Amino acid sequence: MRRTLKAAILGSTGLVGIEYVRMLANHPYIKVGYLAGKGSVGKPYGEVVRWQTIGQVPTEIADMEVKPTDPKLMDDVDIVFSPLPQGAAGPVEEEFAKHGFPVISNSPDHRFDPDVPLLIPEVNPHTISLIDKQRERRDWRGFIVTTPLCTAQGAAIPLAPIYMNFKIDSSLITTIQSLSGAGYPGIPSLDVIDNVLPLGDNYDNKTVKEISRILSETKRMVDDDDNNLSLGATTHRVATIHGHYEVIYITFKEDVTVEKIGETLDSFRGEPQNLKLPTAPDKPILLINQDARPQVYFDRWAGNPPGMSVVVGRLGQINRRTIRLVSVIHNTVRGAAGGGILATELLIEKGYIDKR
Amino acid sequence: MRRTLKAAILGSTGLVGIEYVRMLANHPYIKVGYLAGKGSVGKPYGEVVRWQTIGQVPTEIADMEVKPTDPKLMDDVDIVFSPLPQGAAGPVEEEFAKHGFPVISNSPDHRFDPDVPLLIPEVNPHTISLIDKQRERRDWRGFIVTTPLCTAQGAAIPLAPIYMNFKIDSSLITTIQSLSGAGYPGIPSLDVIDNVLPLGDNYDNKTVKEISRILSETKRMVDDDDNNLSLGATTHRVATIHGHYEVIYITFKEDVTVEKIGETLDSFRGEPQNLKLPTAPDKPILLINQDARPQVYFDRWAGNPPGMSVVVGRLGQINRRTIRLVSVIHNTVRGAAGGGILATELLIEKGYIDKR
Amino acid sequence: MRRTLKAAILGSTGLVGIEYVRMLANHPYIKVGYLAGKGSVGKPYGEVVRWQTIGQVPTEIADMEVKPTDPKLMDDVDIVFSPLPQGAAGPVEEEFAKHGFPVISNSPDHRFDPDVPLLIPEVNPHTISLIDKQRERRDWRGFIVTTPLCTAQGAAIPLAPIYMNFKIDSSLITTIQSLSGAGYPGIPSLDVIDNVLPLGDNYDNKTVKEISRILSETKRMVDDDDNNLSLGATTHRVATIHGHYEVIYITFKEDVTVEKIGETLDSFRGEPQNLKLPTAPDKPILLINQDARPQVYFDRWAGNPPGMSVVVGRLGQINRRTIRLVSVIHNTVRGAAGGGILATELLIEKGYIDKR
Amino acid sequence: MRRTLKAAILGSTGLVGIEYVRMLANHPYIKVGYLAGKGSVGKPYGEVVRWQTIGQVPTEIADMEVKPTDPKLMDDVDIVFSPLPQGAAGPVEEEFAKHGFPVISNSPDHRFDPDVPLLIPEVNPHTISLIDKQRERRDWRGFIVTTPLCTAQGAAIPLAPIYMNFKIDSSLITTIQSLSGAGYPGIPSLDVIDNVLPLGDNYDNKTVKEISRILSETKRMVDDDDNNLSLGATTHRVATIHGHYEVIYITFKEDVTVEKIGETLDSFRGEPQNLKLPTAPDKPILLINQDARPQVYFDRWAGNPPGMSVVVGRLGQINRRTIRLVSVIHNTVRGAAGGGILATELLIEKGYIDKR
Ligand SMILES: NC(=O)c1ccc[n+]([C@@H]2O[C@H](COP(=O)([O-])OP(=O)(O)OC[C@H]3O[C@@H](n4cnc5c(N)ncnc54)[C@H](OP(=O)(O)O)[C@@H]3O)[C@@H](O)[C@H]2O)c1
Ligand SMILES: NC(=O)c1ccc[n+]([C@@H]2O[C@H](COP(=O)([O-])OP(=O)(O)OC[C@H]3O[C@@H](n4cnc5c(N)ncnc54)[C@H](OP(=O)(O)O)[C@@H]3O)[C@@H](O)[C@H]2O)c1
Ligand SMILES: NC(=O)c1ccc[n+]([C@@H]2O[C@H](COP(=O)([O-])OP(=O)(O)OC[C@H]3O[C@@H](n4cnc5c(N)ncnc54)[C@H](OP(=O)(O)O)[C@@H]3O)[C@@H](O)[C@H]2O)c1
Ligand SMILES: NC(=O)c1ccc[n+]([C@@H]2O[C@H](COP(=O)([O-])OP(=O)(O)OC[C@H]3O[C@@H](n4cnc5c(N)ncnc54)[C@H](OP(=O)(O)O)[C@@H]3O)[C@@H](O)[C@H]2O)c1
Repeated sequence: MRRTLKAAILGSTGLVGIEYVRMLANHPYIKVGYLAGKGSVGKPYGEVVRWQTIGQVPTEIADMEVKPTDPKLMDDVDIVFSPLPQGAAGPVEEEFAKHGFPVISNSPDHRFDPDVPLLIPEVNPHTISLIDKQRERRDWRGFIVTTPLCTAQGAAIPLAPIYMNFKIDSSLITTIQSLSGAGYPGIPSLDVIDNVLPLGDNYDNKTVKEISRILSETKRMVDDDDNNLSLGATTHRVATIHGHYEVIYITFKEDVTVEKIGETLDSFRGEPQNLKLPTAPDKPILLINQDARPQVYFDRWAGNPPGMSVVVGRLGQINRRTIRLVSVIHNTVRGAAGGGILATELLIEKGYIDKR
Repeated sequence: MRRTLKAAILGSTGLVGIEYVRMLANHPYIKVGYLAGKGSVGKPYGEVVRWQTIGQVPTEIADMEVKPTDPKLMDDVDIVFSPLPQGAAGPVEEEFAKHGFPVISNSPDHRFDPDVPLLIPEVNPHTISLIDKQRERRDWRGFIVTTPLCTAQGAAIPLAPIYMNFKIDSSLITTIQSLSGAGYPGIPSLDVIDNVLPLGDNYDNKTVKEISRILSETKRMVDDDDNNLSLGATTHRVATIHGHYEVIYITFKEDVTVEKIGETLDSFRGEPQNLKLPTAPDKPILLINQDARPQVYFDRWAGNPPGMSVVVGRLGQINRRTIRLVSVIHNTVRGAAGGGILATELLIEKGYIDKR
Repeated sequence: MRRTLKAAILGSTGLVGIEYVRMLANHPYIKVGYLAGKGSVGKPYGEVVRWQTIGQVPTEIADMEVKPTDPKLMDDVDIVFSPLPQGAAGPVEEEFAKHGFPVISNSPDHRFDPDVPLLIPEVNPHTISLIDKQRERRDWRGFIVTTPLCTAQGAAIPLAPIYMNFKIDSSLITTIQSLSGAGYPGIPSLDVIDNVLPLGDNYDNKTVKEISRILSETKRMVDDDDNNLSLGATTHRVATIHGHYEVIYITFKEDVTVEKIGETLDSFRGEPQNLKLPTAPDKPILLINQDARPQVYFDRWAGNPPGMSVVVGRLGQINRRTIRLVSVIHNTVRGAAGGGILATELLIEKGYIDKR
Repeated sequence: MRRTLKAAILGSTGLVGIEYVRMLANHPYIKVGYLAGKGSVGKPYGEVVRWQTIGQVPTEIADMEVKPTDPKLMDDVDIVFSPLPQGAAGPVEEEFAKHGFPVISNSPDHRFDPDVPLLIPEVNPHTISLIDKQRERRDWRGFIVTTPLCTAQGAAIPLAPIYMNFKIDSSLITTIQSLSGAGYPGIPSLDVIDNVLPLGDNYDNKTVKEISRILSETKRMVDDDDNNLSLGATTHRVATIHGHYEVIYITFKEDVTVEKIGETLDSFRGEPQNLKLPTAPDKPILLINQDARPQVYFDRWAGNPPGMSVVVGRLGQINRRTIRLVSVIHNTVRGAAGGGILATELLIEKGYIDKR
């Protein structure tokens, strides 16, 4: 039996933080040991948290006090989960890594450091080895691993097995995202009631950039002189609470059939499945075969643990070389906290995290 | 000066019907003479109508009684606008045409009759001549002209000038549509609160089919051996009241620049503009150049008359041959009632409608 | 140990039906044995049901076929839960009772039959004895028990302990209700987006009528010559999915303090709590003491089992004789399926239901 | 003919500011001469403004530059409208008054200064004379007049004629308010999607306090030893854009009939109507007699000018001494900008404002 590891959750009162708390409440060998925050420091977690998720605040957590975000106060902590806001996250995460903590970050600040993994455990697990380079170069005892933008994951997870097995020419994506993706207070209500809110070039571009990197880090099984694919993304928010919906058109360099694509998606498994990691869903991708599905409300909590599978449907043949599919991803679970916990389980398995 | 023509509005209490009433209240030479309905027959219009649009029920209309949908009661009517529900519309419209009425229909029932125009006045005005064939073949004194599906218009209007001037290979569309597009009661609230509702294959396919036909009826100015373009559409509703939002990716057979495409869209004018028809907006397409626009709430009523211009923005270069644009169309105005009135003005101008 | 009883759920695919399915999946001695429906007969439950609640369709239920609503097909069924639509329910429920089934109905059709209990197990459990009269009068082997309108319960549950302990003069109620209360398809989306929808006199009146009857059936502990209280209710729906929010002003015949009222609410327990029935929450009323609570989103699933406690807050003194409180009730759980299961447990305990 | 007066609009890009701009575009003798802002200073109004109202930015205004909020730059301005945020407003308004400007404020900062009118032109016009005291005491050439909280107006306007003509014992109010009432960015979307948001004690109390003061300043026509009435308010926001909905229960000291109350409301007129002020609606209160009206979506723009009439309906008799009514008020029009313009017209009429 594995020893129990103690986790600190930075930003524990945030929309990602609460999913860490919820998911770790039942974890076999990771336990919440420290709840960090900013404005809510000093108050009982159960009183200050906006519990915008399923279930209730776990009883044993409700009375814990929110504490400062300070490595010096975390002597008995083995892992640090960091869903901190952009900008705030960067320096804090470096400090924790310097202090010897393994930092699993959902924030964007270090995603494009060349020695930091941008990890989807099923898709690019071998990038974990970047940690060795990172520690050496930075002379850190700890390290930083990041998880990608939720929006990027909603496309990258279904695109990955396809990219590994077929020659993709281009993919054109349109997202219809939920409000929780922007944190709290996040999106003003007057921006989304009776409206569709475009997120603009900046958000579109970072989505494309992250998907590109993730795909380039997969192990391709096809012969292709030209690895490059052209990506486009147009991103939006509407008045949904959780769950990003993404329409993904893919054009190939050769004729394809949706049947073959469907099989590829359905049979996709990664190391987390092979290793039977506790937070790994049986299938990272759940194919759904109904004309009006997936839907955000009905499919965002799919899989087991709930919210860990990306639901893919609407597989359709546009022409001989172009197909369409639609994905729904739970942005704060698979796209953040759940992805972070799964990454941690893999890191533990690979010997990167142990009792400090 | 033109003589005033009397119009009957079938389905006058519906979501399209109210826009006919609103727009005709100020029309220079078309006047509402008859309000037809079904469940609301016998009651004063102002009492039964759900006025889900801007302004108030025009005073002179509020007290008019809703009357049966019967050509024999419409002796002094010159034009019949028919925004009737699918299925109900078909036989009723034929009966009116047989009785000698010009029928301007927004319903789908006759859209693919080979002798019936599917008219966007700026795009395929020459298809009006199908009326001659129609009358001859069917031995009708009247005739039927249809306007396309609102969703199809939101893409076809910006695609038309591009198709006329460039060699398009394919276009991949994702729509985020409003609730009024489905009429009343239409979409159940539980389908769209905290949800994105896919409309399914059937709706996707009819959107593609109508866009294809409309584009094929434009006057192309480019040399292209192969006229065919491949179209894909993925259609949805979200919790917006009016206004369809459409993300349109276009791949060309040659290199293009967004600047050239922008100029083409901006300078697009059609016969309604040349003829200065009263309901013709100055520009059928209004280009907007802000990162987070168009937005449904802020752009659906664009143009003059309000709601008659399609707003296009987010012009972006995906790669040398692929661009992206986004359109917002007011589905019940430009996409239905306004389009019907503009078609009528053109038909009058061309001599197809006169005092009966 | 108790023997397992088999339940049939009529209307099993409806919004109340799914909560029966969800809650019975873990019940210690009631098990789903028959899923009845109408339009969905013949199809696997998991394929046709709109699972608009937490969690997923229980695996063992997903493959069960939906069957006709016919007592003759239910030989081995011990209990019939009937969340059927108004109008349809009445005759069907009589037929089942005639055939010897205990029918627990959430529908309004028999609520005001003088020999039919309108039961909130914590509030008026002694009305169960009406069953004896009912069987005798109607010569039935089975019987019908009803649960009140969800809206009425949201007020009656907090009003009951107050009415039992204080002299109430009047209570003036305003409700802000959720969409699921109207079933599916229920409320058209265009009625509630950017709107507040009044439910009108009819709905207001039945709310008042049910609350009045329920209060009159409590065991009063105060001396009061005049039992009558005056009630007013103004009812609405807004764009929330589950959970009715009710603002309740109460004027007394004597001076009161919110503290005393608070104690009364907090200490309220009923027979289900005393008997430790499996679906009984520890507290039927959960007092919450935060300025901006209860809120529909955060409080509707309160209690254990989730959704079985009514959350009451905003206790405020308006003047010496008038106080204000606010309640949130989960309409399809405490207000329907959960209330029905709790009633059944009480009926079993009292010997009214046994293996047939 | 009246000379044209030049107005400066402080906070011109805000939700109240845009209604000033919209309404003054057609005003017979007040003209927008200066658009002030903060973050948007230096930019063309049409580019920075979120035009969250009907119609489009008036063409002649779109190109005007937003300028600093500084009295020294406003030499040719005759009137200053001040919809500034709470806190920011107070000192700025004093400075403008000191500089000799008539300041019409919609902000709360000076509402309870004993020498500052809290004006609803139809209800307490004689409080205008406080200005004389104000100028004297403060030695100002200009002055400050405030308009009440939008929420308070939604109740005070219908309560005023009732209070003037009947002996009210108490009134118990529940509000369901719109998002624009909180300005922009205002309410976070995650607070109101699938939720009802209570505004809490503070907001409840200020609503009661303002209504109390306004009613106490009406001219009562009834003999009543005890002027006091007891008020209670419970305030909320839901996901509506404009328009506050208020359920108002009124208990009297004597028997009343809804018929009499209805007549009183229907016949209510004030000085603005008598003086035929340009922004005065024919009727400040529009009675609507349909079971499911008023509704926020359909009634907020009622009256002429649109949004200037409060729509009252659902008149119901609860018991012999208690009645119920429901009001809908356009919070940014009647409740702010429109109320401010109407106040100004009255002030002009009374000689308090002239060319400087
Ligand atoms: N939301 C998503 O779907 C999602 C998905 C993937 C990645 N992410 C990323 O995850 C991060 C968190 O997102 P979120 O949605 O959870 O945000 P959020 O709801 O806004 O929560 C922010 C949390 O960070 C804490 N915090 C804020 N400033 C801080 C500071 N300077 N130092 C320490 N703690 C601070 C807050 O604590 P107090 O409440 O105590 O002030 C709160 O717990 C962001 O980087 C985001 O990009 C989010
Ligand atoms: N909504 C859009 O954005 C849009 C855009 C383009 C095209 N269209 C097409 O326009 C048509 C109308 O759409 P809508 O949204 O206005 O629908 P709607 O709101 O449902 O209104 C339907 C209208 O038709 C009347 N009606 C219904 N059944 C009838 C019958 N059997 N005979 C005569 N009248 C009947 C109704 O009258 P009573 O109220 O008296 O019963 C009502 O006035 C549809 O064919 C739709 O496809 C709609
Ligand atoms: N929703 C609430 O919050 C709530 C609360 C308290 C009480 N209630 C009461 O509970 C009842 C059910 O409400 P709901 O919201 O669950 O309704 P719903 O979502 O509309 O579901 C109706 C169910 O009844 C079935 N059904 C419809 N007509 C039938 C017929 N003629 N014979 C047999 N089965 C029929 C449907 O089956 P198919 O899908 O197979 O057609 C469906 O399963 C109503 O009486 C309601 O007043 C509801
Ligand atoms: N909204 C309503 O329904 C309503 C009803 C009655 C009364 N009120 C009151 O009216 C006032 C305005 O409300 P709102 O809803 O219009 O607010 P809002 O939408 O938030 O607009 C605020 C406006 O004030 C400007 N501003 C902000 N801080 C400023 C400062 N320090 N100095 C100068 N200008 C500043 C902003 O300019 P920039 O955009 O340039 O930064 C913006 O134009 C508030 O006091 C509110 O209580 C509102």
